Amino acid sequence: MITWKNPDCFPAWGRLAALKDRVDLAGAMTGENGALRVAKYAVPMAAGLKYHYAAKQVDDEVLAALQALADEMQLREKYEALLSGEVINTGEKRLVLHQLTRGQLCGAVTADGVDKREFYEAQRLKAAEFALRVHRGEITNAACERFTTVVQIGIGGSDLGPRAMYLALENWARRNGCFKMEARFISNVDPDDAAAVLKSIDLSRSLFVLVSKSGTTLETLTNESFVKDALRNAGLDPACHMVAVTSETSPLARSSDYLAAFFMDDYIGGRYSSTSCVGGAVLSLAFGPDVFERFLNGAAEEDRLAAEGDILKNPAMLDALIGVYERNVQGYPATAVLPYSQALSRFPAHLQQLDMESNGKSVNRFGEPVNYPTGPVIFGEPGTNGQHSFYQLLHQGTDIVPLQFVGFRRSQAGMDVDIQGSTSQQKLCANVAAQIMAFACGKKDADPNKSFAGGRPSSIIIGECLTPEALGALLSHFENKVMYQGFVWNLNSFDQEGVQLGKVLAKRVLAHETDGALKAFSDLMDI
Amino acid sequence: MITWKNPDCFPAWGRLAALKDRVDLAGAMTGENGALRVAKYAVPMAAGLKYHYAAKQVDDEVLAALQALADEMQLREKYEALLSGEVINTGEKRLVLHQLTRGQLCGAVTADGVDKREFYEAQRLKAAEFALRVHRGEITNAACERFTTVVQIGIGGSDLGPRAMYLALENWARRNGCFKMEARFISNVDPDDAAAVLKSIDLSRSLFVLVSKSGTTLETLTNESFVKDALRNAGLDPACHMVAVTSETSPLARSSDYLAAFFMDDYIGGRYSSTSCVGGAVLSLAFGPDVFERFLNGAAEEDRLAAEGDILKNPAMLDALIGVYERNVQGYPATAVLPYSQALSRFPAHLQQLDMESNGKSVNRFGEPVNYPTGPVIFGEPGTNGQHSFYQLLHQGTDIVPLQFVGFRRSQAGMDVDIQGSTSQQKLCANVAAQIMAFACGKKDADPNKSFAGGRPSSIIIGECLTPEALGALLSHFENKVMYQGFVWNLNSFDQEGVQLGKVLAKRVLAHETDGALKAFSDLMDI
Repeated sequence: MITWKNPDCFPAWGRLAALKDRVDLAGAMTGENGALRVAKYAVPMAAGLKYHYAAKQVDDEVLAALQALADEMQLREKYEALLSGEVINTGEKRLVLHQLTRGQLCGAVTADGVDKREFYEAQRLKAAEFALRVHRGEITNAACERFTTVVQIGIGGSDLGPRAMYLALENWARRNGCFKMEARFISNVDPDDAAAVLKSIDLSRSLFVLVSKSGTTLETLTNESFVKDALRNAGLDPACHMVAVTSETSPLARSSDYLAAFFMDDYIGGRYSSTSCVGGAVLSLAFGPDVFERFLNGAAEEDRLAAEGDILKNPAMLDALIGVYERNVQGYPATAVLPYSQALSRFPAHLQQLDMESNGKSVNRFGEPVNYPTGPVIFGEPGTNGQHSFYQLLHQGTDIVPLQFVGFRRSQAGMDVDIQGSTSQQKLCANVAAQIMAFACGKKDADPNKSFAGGRPSSIIIGECLTPEALGALLSHFENKVMYQGFVWNLNSFDQEGVQLGKVLAKRVLAHETDGALKAFSDLMDI
Repeated sequence: MITWKNPDCFPAWGRLAALKDRVDLAGAMTGENGALRVAKYAVPMAAGLKYHYAAKQVDDEVLAALQALADEMQLREKYEALLSGEVINTGEKRLVLHQLTRGQLCGAVTADGVDKREFYEAQRLKAAEFALRVHRGEITNAACERFTTVVQIGIGGSDLGPRAMYLALENWARRNGCFKMEARFISNVDPDDAAAVLKSIDLSRSLFVLVSKSGTTLETLTNESFVKDALRNAGLDPACHMVAVTSETSPLARSSDYLAAFFMDDYIGGRYSSTSCVGGAVLSLAFGPDVFERFLNGAAEEDRLAAEGDILKNPAMLDALIGVYERNVQGYPATAVLPYSQALSRFPAHLQQLDMESNGKSVNRFGEPVNYPTGPVIFGEPGTNGQHSFYQLLHQGTDIVPLQFVGFRRSQAGMDVDIQGSTSQQKLCANVAAQIMAFACGKKDADPNKSFAGGRPSSIIIGECLTPEALGALLSHFENKVMYQGFVWNLNSFDQEGVQLGKVLAKRVLAHETDGALKAFSDLMDI
């Protein structure tokens, strides 16, 4: 029997709170003890990745308290309930089934009269077959020419995840002979976004993937019209250049405006949809269905680890709990995501949505106000770029910002250059190792302006190379971490009521039904 | 006589602190009073922009306290001292002269025996003449073909600002017949960054701009080698494809490896260098020197406003002081930058460096630890994209994040589509107006999960269109804002000692001179 309660109802919460500032990180990471911590505080992940938390402010005592909190709060049981198809998204009375797009850990889940794993798998295969027919030249433009470019039209979860995944694998795919079509993305309702993308492609050889679960997302429908106008103006038939990814009940589902339609449903939230057709269509077209399947396999393998009850074997749960300790006990308001991989340039933007939209909430799953901080601000850029930008504040600012590094031993493209006795990839790797220690241990200097206090916690996920499997594992890790934090904070991590009010007011502005300051701002914007 | 003291030495600091939570923002912005605030709380900027702060938590009492703080702390005098060439960057004993790249407000500044305005202007003209010769086909590749692409190689301030500015004007330039060459950027030491850029361009038609003030930035020199290898492998002579932007004393300055060299100096910090040759070379090549000059004119005009002593006429000083109120009195740890313009997609990343690297410090300009929070975390993405991502937390999260909106009445490209009775541009504008009010006023709902507390402060800079002048004004506004906040916090906003330790440790890793945890992490990264 699962009990959904706020964390402060459990004894372990008080036990954890009593451990504030327990670990002197600079001291702990100095000398041989530091090396011992690096060896000890690591958890294997899927696809050869490993989660290292030696430079976090934890020791066995803190870990024991975190495990106690996990046990008392039944975190593993809650995860299994989710996997088993319970109505975890209570506000919207929906199951949460995105993990079924890549595997099935807890038996079949039936909803709306169908086996949901089978349903998602059928959609994946439909998109895969479509992609193969495009690649084989069986589906072409009216002039029988092959499509060379795929353009995703979507916003939020229909954009950030797929775009980040595409960029993450583009170099890898080129190197490994899997690069089939270039992908581009149109998301913003700003007409300059679509205009710029359309100017940069050959319309006649482009296939557009329209992604909207409801089929009513205003930005996406607007951009669809924008694209259709451009196609028609170029003498092309839009229906021969577009596919839809939507739910079966949406107005797009049975339209003759599309070459094909691939389905998702209400049990997959936008920000959790990268492994559904929302990511599957564009990624299968860009890199081939095999690559997409490898990506799914990495995610599925990581999901399995996330079902462990022992936090020392469950990187997602551990990462989540350490984050809770940092947010609620140490009182840190933000977290930086810092991949040492240019391919992950937009991965932080995806995590920003995943995390902040899931857990940026002030009421618990029963609608009661919470009296503890929930989701932090998430931001980040790839290293080493960030080192020459905002790292100054991370090292010497007045607030402490916990850090999440990601690094790989090998590059994707395999091109490199040896300068001053090391390759670029070695420099990249040396920098991330150095940063972890600089943040943790700092350095005293006679000049206070050159002193580093240290004590700034970080973790790092290390892998061999950013392959499709590794990317899937990374994605799954953070999805599961966010869900676990939602369980601890007793939130519904699967709705987003906070985005509604702006939409309502924007409609009112467009209908000229405003007064007071809203009318004044509308006038200023010339609406 | 200027006195450099911490803000808590001044009476106005206490007066300001006593005004915590003074303004009920939701109440103030509701009804006709809200409209009156919108009309009243606005300051004209350069290039037709206007800074609106009606939705900030201020009233005449708070503004009076901010003005008192500005007066007591001699903020205007400090700005003038900076313009006049005093050694404001005390740690590094340097003048701060980036504003001389676009104008001269306080008489001639002589340093190193030369008039610095003349020096920067001569460098601008040299780069302009070079660009014109490239555009006229007088400087070509060895096969006498015109260059079509310019690739900037630089990191940090040599990358973020120029890249953001290029993206900001690309659509505008295409529309207005000023688009001369496509620009690309290589920054990360990750070899996959350079590999991806080089794969996407025609090397034989590409001109590379190597930007490093010192001529010793490891990432940049590494990427230069990477590019030179690629050029040689393609049978091309690197010296015919490269120019340098550097200081006169750097090893690059007199090298025969470059077609030309354009100079900056130690008085222009990297993050303040967009209006120097660091931005000027690539932007003049991409859009022509005239466009770059228009950009400078917008910045110069805005600089003039920033010299006003009355905060109600000085948008940069006012914005800075409101930010100080939010950070030090209201206690907000982060600020989001939210441009409703896809062209400004990387502007937040530039501001992230500008702000966090300038003011993310814990000791004052005399090296004494400060006992108040300094620079906040800065992050952001363009709207409406952000609305479908992290806005959930901004609306309903447990922390309040002050917001900085930017919006324009007209698009750059001028392509648009009318759907449901409005254009995309109108939808974009309606959304930003709606968001301001949703954040300020919130909305009560019987369902607590659908309730919005409101009271979340924002400002907006509104302009007609993102032109070169408007962009220059925007850039200058934020540079001056950041410097004013540095004056209030009594920081040296012009050094970045916090980036040094990581560099030192990275070198140690590459030299295999490590032990303990640093060696352990180096081993894990396979160095």
